[in-house]
Amino acid sequence: MNSPKKTAISPTREQNYPEWYQQIIKAADLAEVSPVRGCMVIKPWGFGIWENIQHVLDEAFKATGHKNLYFPLMIPMSFMQKEAEHVEGFAKECAVVTHHRLAHDDQGKLVPAGPLEEPYIIRPTSETIIGEAFSRWIQSYRDLPLLINQWANIVRWEMRTRIFLRTTEFLWQEGHTAHATAEEAMKESRMILDLYSHFVEDYLAMPVIQGEKTASERFPGAVNTFCIEAMMQDKKALQAGTSHFLGQHFSRGFNIRYLSAQGKEEFVWTTSWGVSTRLIGGLIMTHSDDDGLVLPPKIAPAHVVILPIIHQEDDRADILKYCDQLAAELKQIDYHGRRVVVEIDTRDIAGGEKAWHWVKKGIPVRLEIGKKECAAQSVFMGRRDKAYKDKKTISKEELIKTLTIELDEMQTQLFSRAKSFMEKNTKVIDSKERFYEFFKGEGKGDGAGGFALAHWNGSAEVEAKLKQDLSVTIRCIPFVESVSDVGSVFSAESKQPGKCIFTDEPSKQRVVFAKAY
Amino acid sequence: MNSPKKTAISPTREQNYPEWYQQIIKAADLAEVSPVRGCMVIKPWGFGIWENIQHVLDEAFKATGHKNLYFPLMIPMSFMQKEAEHVEGFAKECAVVTHHRLAHDDQGKLVPAGPLEEPYIIRPTSETIIGEAFSRWIQSYRDLPLLINQWANIVRWEMRTRIFLRTTEFLWQEGHTAHATAEEAMKESRMILDLYSHFVEDYLAMPVIQGEKTASERFPGAVNTFCIEAMMQDKKALQAGTSHFLGQHFSRGFNIRYLSAQGKEEFVWTTSWGVSTRLIGGLIMTHSDDDGLVLPPKIAPAHVVILPIIHQEDDRADILKYCDQLAAELKQIDYHGRRVVVEIDTRDIAGGEKAWHWVKKGIPVRLEIGKKECAAQSVFMGRRDKAYKDKKTISKEELIKTLTIELDEMQTQLFSRAKSFMEKNTKVIDSKERFYEFFKGEGKGDGAGGFALAHWNGSAEVEAKLKQDLSVTIRCIPFVESVSDVGSVFSAESKQPGKCIFTDEPSKQRVVFAKAY
Repeated sequence: MNSPKKTAISPTREQNYPEWYQQIIKAADLAEVSPVRGCMVIKPWGFGIWENIQHVLDEAFKATGHKNLYFPLMIPMSFMQKEAEHVEGFAKECAVVTHHRLAHDDQGKLVPAGPLEEPYIIRPTSETIIGEAFSRWIQSYRDLPLLINQWANIVRWEMRTRIFLRTTEFLWQEGHTAHATAEEAMKESRMILDLYSHFVEDYLAMPVIQGEKTASERFPGAVNTFCIEAMMQDKKALQAGTSHFLGQHFSRGFNIRYLSAQGKEEFVWTTSWGVSTRLIGGLIMTHSDDDGLVLPPKIAPAHVVILPIIHQEDDRADILKYCDQLAAELKQIDYHGRRVVVEIDTRDIAGGEKAWHWVKKGIPVRLEIGKKECAAQSVFMGRRDKAYKDKKTISKEELIKTLTIELDEMQTQLFSRAKSFMEKNTKVIDSKERFYEFFKGEGKGDGAGGFALAHWNGSAEVEAKLKQDLSVTIRCIPFVESVSDVGSVFSAESKQPGKCIFTDEPSKQRVVFAKAY
Repeated sequence: MNSPKKTAISPTREQNYPEWYQQIIKAADLAEVSPVRGCMVIKPWGFGIWENIQHVLDEAFKATGHKNLYFPLMIPMSFMQKEAEHVEGFAKECAVVTHHRLAHDDQGKLVPAGPLEEPYIIRPTSETIIGEAFSRWIQSYRDLPLLINQWANIVRWEMRTRIFLRTTEFLWQEGHTAHATAEEAMKESRMILDLYSHFVEDYLAMPVIQGEKTASERFPGAVNTFCIEAMMQDKKALQAGTSHFLGQHFSRGFNIRYLSAQGKEEFVWTTSWGVSTRLIGGLIMTHSDDDGLVLPPKIAPAHVVILPIIHQEDDRADILKYCDQLAAELKQIDYHGRRVVVEIDTRDIAGGEKAWHWVKKGIPVRLEIGKKECAAQSVFMGRRDKAYKDKKTISKEELIKTLTIELDEMQTQLFSRAKSFMEKNTKVIDSKERFYEFFKGEGKGDGAGGFALAHWNGSAEVEAKLKQDLSVTIRCIPFVESVSDVGSVFSAESKQPGKCIFTDEPSKQRVVFAKAY
């Protein structure tokens, strides 16, 4: 008889993917839904991931000449109107500040008071308020390029929210740059997309496809929106980062002009780009399994947990001393620019319960230390990407020598797994019938769902119909050349022109269709 | 004839201190007033100071067991009502979110739409929303102490704002902790005050007096508010950081209870504490002079600027090459846990203009490099705490060997200057007449204004009268023992009981009176 395998997380991915996702977050104590509609509390283990994301990206932005600064949270309502597409894109999801104090009404109830002459919106993104500043800061070609970034909180009043993936408030970075020419601005926006791709693949171990959004999926006010798209374990796409070439839309709206070296007054060319706490949702859905979170070592808040297993009170002092020494030594090891982070769990609970607590939190390496290990100066080691029972005893010396190799192996292993999964579930599709079947899930299993590479005539009507019929969108028009091309997915053939499978009209290249978060 | 010395900043401190402050900020390009009422844009040079403050404090918080996390920006209005003093303290300065979208009215004008059932306030501080979470997170004594911190933006609708010192939106960190006993919570709040004192004195080179606020100056909802107070160059006080012992006020308001080891249900004891971007204002007003900003090296966004001085086009390549090599070597040097940060200013402007640009920005060390220095492998060095013309030629080798010593000397020098200034302007005052004279500025010069150490009977009426008559408040009841006691200020005598100079009633010890920001 095949009884189902017992898992630490219930339901499993297979049984109920959305609910599995919520349970992973709860079991790992990453975040929780707050009493504020659609907002989350990011708890220390989740925030530790965000701190690491910030740290790595911040260095990369600075190394490419960007400086951090900070703009106000509140934007005058009138600023939003200066770029027509922009305001239409965000009007439906703006939190509006209309009063500046609270007072008691006749019944003693608190009510808003002190109405503002002009309401403010909470920033849903900062192009407008930054555009106003750029118009004052930029006078001459000598002021260009202007390359800035801010780490900030953002509010977008979303109707349907999901923790990390789509929340009313989220944390992000937003880069904003101004350039003398269209070419330079375009180069910047593509450079940042490459920077994002490298980061997401190298640190989060999430393979991505780079490409451009179609007109209907563009950022409100952008000329081009470039993006990276990852595949989750339910085969849906997740947009992991975007970089926008804004042309002269905002420089015309906000009158951002410079005097060229030739003495001519010109509008600047701008870009903007961002990644957010949504990346944590992507990380969870890419790597985690039915036993809990799985964290790529290069981004994990801690790399190693030491689990003292004390059966007899007499052994306590020796075991804890050995654990402390071990921790001190491990903390001296460098791992990709930071020191190894070690936790010791000294709680008085059963060894198995303790170990499973950390499995669910996704910590890369677990070291169980009992009387035996203490006496032999060894550790009993488990790695989160292997089966729970696949553990080994090695000497402390050996561990210190090989820890970073183990961590790197796990990092590589997570990326390859995810890459294989993405490749396996990306299909070249050449007929409308097969396309509908693919997304309707007829012929379930490997054949159904994922990324479809198909020819398309470029029309928004086709996109609208597919969205309505199948909830499928074009994730991107993939770049023919890309730093993060997922190898076998794009055969030479798929980059050739062809015929739209929905209309028989000409198509320049295949595009990526998928259901998406 | 004595013509007034020409200064880079106009007006001087002497001529118009508040305007001098604004001009320092402008000349150093630290920040600017934004089109959003009372809010500022923190520009890269100012934000670089904040990043360094964050970096040092964040490490110190983590080293003392605190974990970072993130709570929502918006707080349900009803939460504010659960602690009576708290809501009264903040009701007059709350930005209120009442709508969640924008719509066009009949004239096509944008107007707030989608009214919220329950308005939200933008956090003026987060005790309430964190209290609600603590009530869910804390069940047993095993969950205590709970030690958390968040870096966040805060909105308080202030009527009169001043850049960095009092702005509608500001950046800060807020620590929140919960403990099993009053003793532990008290110990935490005092430990953090010590941590703040060490940081402000060691990094910002600002001497502080530690003490406790009187009841009328307490944080709304606190049992005790502890503070550090610094003296600005106009002899006014600046509250540089606060740490609150909240007793059981918030645990009762939010029902935060735990089961003790003895199986008894108890309310926890909480603390909260914060420092903000206001510290940057304090930094500016403590050290800057009539030529611009002066930055303590340990907190400066950059330590050294290299200024290539090119008189002949033929020398350009050699000079720039030498500058680049020099920069590369300096960047290898460690200075208090980070690498030396070097800027090179290659703009084609006059050498003097270039040098003064960096004097005004307060960079600790300037290196002028012309043909002569290039040939001799030397540098012409100026240090910001010395006179502009007090420069010296030293070999590159010597510079590399002594740079950190120079920086440390400057750091120490700034602290001693500020400490002497504070001591000189802190007076023991023993009569009401002398007190009024001191603060009214009769007998101007050294004798007038500053900190007055005087006896007080403990009554709020006396405080109210002094506030009305002189705009003077009690900055703190200074600790008799303090990690950052400003030596000669507190003689043994000043800590003894005495008689209130306003009422003749008994006084436990002298307290610190001053005008304040």
